[in-house]
Amino acid sequence: MGKKITIHSPATVANMVCGFDVLGFAVHEPYDIMHMEITEELGIVIVNEDDFNLPTDPLQNVAGAALLALMEAYGKPVGFKLTINKQIKPGSGVGSSAASSAGAVVGANALLGNLFSNEELVKFAMNGEKLASGVKHADNIAPCIYGGVTLIRSVFPLDIVKLNVPDLYVTIIHPQIEVKTSDARSILKQQVQLKDAIKQWGNIAGLVAGLEQGDYDLIGRSLEDFLIEPTRSILIPAFEAIKKVSKELGALGGGISGSGPSIFMLSTNESTAKSVELAMQQIYDKIGLGYHTYLTTINTSGILLSEAS
Amino acid sequence: MGKKITIHSPATVANMVCGFDVLGFAVHEPYDIMHMEITEELGIVIVNEDDFNLPTDPLQNVAGAALLALMEAYGKPVGFKLTINKQIKPGSGVGSSAASSAGAVVGANALLGNLFSNEELVKFAMNGEKLASGVKHADNIAPCIYGGVTLIRSVFPLDIVKLNVPDLYVTIIHPQIEVKTSDARSILKQQVQLKDAIKQWGNIAGLVAGLEQGDYDLIGRSLEDFLIEPTRSILIPAFEAIKKVSKELGALGGGISGSGPSIFMLSTNESTAKSVELAMQQIYDKIGLGYHTYLTTINTSGILLSEAS
Repeated sequence: MGKKITIHSPATVANMVCGFDVLGFAVHEPYDIMHMEITEELGIVIVNEDDFNLPTDPLQNVAGAALLALMEAYGKPVGFKLTINKQIKPGSGVGSSAASSAGAVVGANALLGNLFSNEELVKFAMNGEKLASGVKHADNIAPCIYGGVTLIRSVFPLDIVKLNVPDLYVTIIHPQIEVKTSDARSILKQQVQLKDAIKQWGNIAGLVAGLEQGDYDLIGRSLEDFLIEPTRSILIPAFEAIKKVSKELGALGGGISGSGPSIFMLSTNESTAKSVELAMQQIYDKIGLGYHTYLTTINTSGILLSEAS
Repeated sequence: MGKKITIHSPATVANMVCGFDVLGFAVHEPYDIMHMEITEELGIVIVNEDDFNLPTDPLQNVAGAALLALMEAYGKPVGFKLTINKQIKPGSGVGSSAASSAGAVVGANALLGNLFSNEELVKFAMNGEKLASGVKHADNIAPCIYGGVTLIRSVFPLDIVKLNVPDLYVTIIHPQIEVKTSDARSILKQQVQLKDAIKQWGNIAGLVAGLEQGDYDLIGRSLEDFLIEPTRSILIPAFEAIKKVSKELGALGGGISGSGPSIFMLSTNESTAKSVELAMQQIYDKIGLGYHTYLTTINTSGILLSEAS
């Protein structure tokens, strides 16, 4: 049936410390690589080119669940073949499921002639998140599709705001442990102190103002979380040590990526981000814990499409 | 001792719906008029030119309490005469005490040759707020001194951020009832649901982004408060009716000014703001409640000083 496209679907960092459930940003690395084409055969064929042994049944695969929602909205019979080469390890906390779900629907939309808006694509892709974590959250999906830092002001009704951001370097370390999103969510207290909530919305307001105004100091001062991090960070080895040394080395701040276990730190320049990476590695080397690190920047474009060769 | 200055100290609207305890903005009207000069006699002399019968003992007067804090920091013997003509009715919920406290210290600072930063002046003026309400809050003081919309990201340590704002018209109605700040505060629940807090910080992030980006629709969508308004609005007659009709007439949104009883509404243009004012007046006329209204704009300069004639 002709056109075949290649999809680069980036990792994303949800929450951004003080923006639990509402903020997220896309990075340049890592990213999943997918190939997609329309097929004469109706339905969805998923082929995995990686070693993660993810389900190929569309009903059980997050990309499949997202595609099925798009196909239902499309309303006409159509078939897709989707080849997935995941580079973003599932369970790493940097939006692995979102990259698959968002990449699939953005690719399908391009193949169908761009019938759907970004907001509609987010809604389709949220079906993948629902399959992965039980919750239709958009704080990874939205930055993956829109790029940059996105605010999900509201999920029902969906209201996505793309923020203006200055240049920021991002250091990510993914310790080789498993933290299930459902576990990270179940340990949260469902009631919070009003005084702590006030601190939190003071900080998110400061973070948004800092991003919009390009005020790095303000961004750094606002990267505080008194509500979620104290509970969730317990699940992540050496979290406090990594945060402390990163800030001593000049990082603006950072915290848990999504529900973990990855940790991210923001810096204004590459050499600081590099020192932070080395210091993070040394800490996990010392305790004998395996890891992957990424030194990257905020990706303001989101998913990238190209004609497959 | 020579120079005598005139101080125009504006009313302010704290909280701004979704920014409880952290946001506030200054308006052009109403404003207090004060005259101030350095005297040979040491200490503070306060003269009231209005009919509010506020204390003239500096220890009991909010402007006096603020001035005393400044004089302590100044460290050298000095005397001030402060003549106050309040136009902002005490207890109206539009920062009457803040206008006195902030006006006094901004005036004194000018007379002393501008020794203190705006941030230091906020700290001095917060002593007036402590006297008035028992709490050293800055969400009226900061916009009064800085002008525009200010974010108090944190009180301890003090961190004030002036936001960029598009043109906004403000309609305020002050029903002639008394709501004590201490009462309005005591009815608040000290614990909140995490899911409601998330909505609140989604909204404040949306409001800050909307102000910075000049996106009126986003400002309007973000002016929601699920935590404070449902409790406090009970104290304000016809609150829901006023809010409903204002939005039907095209106001972006609004809510309780500070801890009330004043209600404010934001509009993008004067004719909408005027229709809102008339509709508010009709509602209180119908129930036979006295009121004052103001149709004004956001005041990005804050306190205005001039040489007294």
